[in-house]
Amino acid sequence: MSEIGLAEPLPPGSTIGVLGGGQLGRMLSMAAAKLGLRTHIYCDEPRCPAFDVSAQQTVGSYTDFERLTAFARSVDVVTYEFENVPVEAACHLAEIVPVRPGPRALQVAQDRLVEKQFISGLGVQVAPFARVDTAQDLAAALDRFGGQCILKTRRFGYDGKGQVSVAPGENCAQALAAVGNAPAILEKRLSFACEVSVLVVRGRDGQDRFYDIPQNTHSGGILRRSVVPSSLAPEEQELARRMAQRIAEALDYVGVLAVEMFYMGPGSEEPLYVNEIAPRVHNSGHWTMDACPVSQFENHIRAVAGWPLGSTERHSNAEMINLIGKDAQAWRELAAEAGTLIHLYGKREPRDGRKMGHINRLFPKC
Amino acid sequence: MSEIGLAEPLPPGSTIGVLGGGQLGRMLSMAAAKLGLRTHIYCDEPRCPAFDVSAQQTVGSYTDFERLTAFARSVDVVTYEFENVPVEAACHLAEIVPVRPGPRALQVAQDRLVEKQFISGLGVQVAPFARVDTAQDLAAALDRFGGQCILKTRRFGYDGKGQVSVAPGENCAQALAAVGNAPAILEKRLSFACEVSVLVVRGRDGQDRFYDIPQNTHSGGILRRSVVPSSLAPEEQELARRMAQRIAEALDYVGVLAVEMFYMGPGSEEPLYVNEIAPRVHNSGHWTMDACPVSQFENHIRAVAGWPLGSTERHSNAEMINLIGKDAQAWRELAAEAGTLIHLYGKREPRDGRKMGHINRLFPKC
Repeated sequence: MSEIGLAEPLPPGSTIGVLGGGQLGRMLSMAAAKLGLRTHIYCDEPRCPAFDVSAQQTVGSYTDFERLTAFARSVDVVTYEFENVPVEAACHLAEIVPVRPGPRALQVAQDRLVEKQFISGLGVQVAPFARVDTAQDLAAALDRFGGQCILKTRRFGYDGKGQVSVAPGENCAQALAAVGNAPAILEKRLSFACEVSVLVVRGRDGQDRFYDIPQNTHSGGILRRSVVPSSLAPEEQELARRMAQRIAEALDYVGVLAVEMFYMGPGSEEPLYVNEIAPRVHNSGHWTMDACPVSQFENHIRAVAGWPLGSTERHSNAEMINLIGKDAQAWRELAAEAGTLIHLYGKREPRDGRKMGHINRLFPKC
Repeated sequence: MSEIGLAEPLPPGSTIGVLGGGQLGRMLSMAAAKLGLRTHIYCDEPRCPAFDVSAQQTVGSYTDFERLTAFARSVDVVTYEFENVPVEAACHLAEIVPVRPGPRALQVAQDRLVEKQFISGLGVQVAPFARVDTAQDLAAALDRFGGQCILKTRRFGYDGKGQVSVAPGENCAQALAAVGNAPAILEKRLSFACEVSVLVVRGRDGQDRFYDIPQNTHSGGILRRSVVPSSLAPEEQELARRMAQRIAEALDYVGVLAVEMFYMGPGSEEPLYVNEIAPRVHNSGHWTMDACPVSQFENHIRAVAGWPLGSTERHSNAEMINLIGKDAQAWRELAAEAGTLIHLYGKREPRDGRKMGHINRLFPKC
């Protein structure tokens, strides 16, 4: 049974439970505090970024059901900041307290095969894909697709991990070994013009709002830069929003959903293909913290708390650049730049590939 | 010896100690976290708003020197969110760790007589005032000023407490009893057009920046509403900034200083009189959270941490309205209003006169 319309919004003073204590949990905590809501962070690492700005903290494994039970009993609603929360944990919590977005979104987002089947089943365009369990599967799919492809593990891939480029004639056993011989999918590599993402927030009443679509640049599998506005034409933006909306509705989604897409360039017959979804606030939406009155973090909290959604309008054009690893060592120079807003996550060691912070640069809206 | 130029900025991961755990401490904590800085809140109340968003908390009296010592040793710099921190406590802390703004600003701001003498000693205009220790003092001053006056306790007045209106012919003993027979000052009541405040942030290197001057409306001694821009002409704004600058420089001030002024209206020979100063972030600057890329809270943290100051520009016109007592019960309707940003402080009981939150409304800059 859908919850829509059944419950009152959580009043100020209520507690939002957040699974995961990384930078997204940290920024969610601050957004909740702005609204007079408390957060209880559940994380499997003892010194995580979100602990510094939350009212309560639990260090525990995501499979420790006893600890999860106590956590669930201490909060009014549960949300999460990463999509690899075990579905069993989410289902267990959902027996005690509402979990938003629901476990179904996790289930879909955790498995690239399920995700692609789900999305294409809605009539939403995705790149050609095939299930790959064996070297034979891989060889057959490579033959079928022709040209460059990407072999991806079905589960636990993020920031480009668990992926390898493959082409017809590839040594299939070696390619599978490169992704740990895990259950995988093969995707045809599209020659897209750029990557974009749709950030939709959907309320408990089914109302949805869209942030302007950022254009994203990745390198080494990690998002480096997002800019708004993107180069999409208005009708292409409208198509992108409709695609994301269809996915959010089919998941009976509550909160911010990020839908990453490939844009094939102006004049393409099929201009947009969904790459993947993230059932959470998203790195490509960090510019909303400075360019919009209501950020993606606040709107996610509003949605999961059953509050009216805030505006998704922006007052400025924006560029978001991730500070990865040693990039953050330039904090002093970046803090001195006019028009640059700096956000640091409180992480201690600047390991390679680790997201340490980001900057937003604002420009007048033309 | 001045600290100017002597020290490096505190790197991300450093800890800012904050004396006081109310809403200003809460918003300072969040601003610090945005920059990757931790906060340790010291407060004499166990369930205070800032505890929910800080990395460390100490509950202790402001005269418990043992606890203050431990607090000072756990942080890299100390600041405060209210001006009634005992000067002895600030001086004690300053022997262990930098205290910014320095104890001198507290000393001046805590005593209305010292404050008025200090400011007028700088050649900055204040309303006529007189020291009042006895009924005789009061009678003499009333005679001298003529017309309506205000009798104010020298210490511990805020939000209109410890004040009473008096006029020639008043029963002086009764008037003094009404302010608790405490050492007091008499101020001549000016017939001003409106109240404004200058929010200046001054860095450790003496550089200063000014937010646009808000026009403030009080009722019952409590700030209700601030709007930017004010009705001051450009040259009057410049005069107001110069007055605030003189005060900040004379205090060798570091951080955000609020200087409340009376504006006598267009064409006045002496258009501006300083009413009082607050050596901290200020309620009349809460609009900066939504109308400026860098809020007063972030700039205060930048200053006390020795960072480069951020921009004080605003991208929008703004109106800030305090939610006092039961006003905050309208949170649901306010959260649904387009163009309205809501901030709630996590306080449990909506007592009369208690600041529970505020809203900012944004309007296009003309």
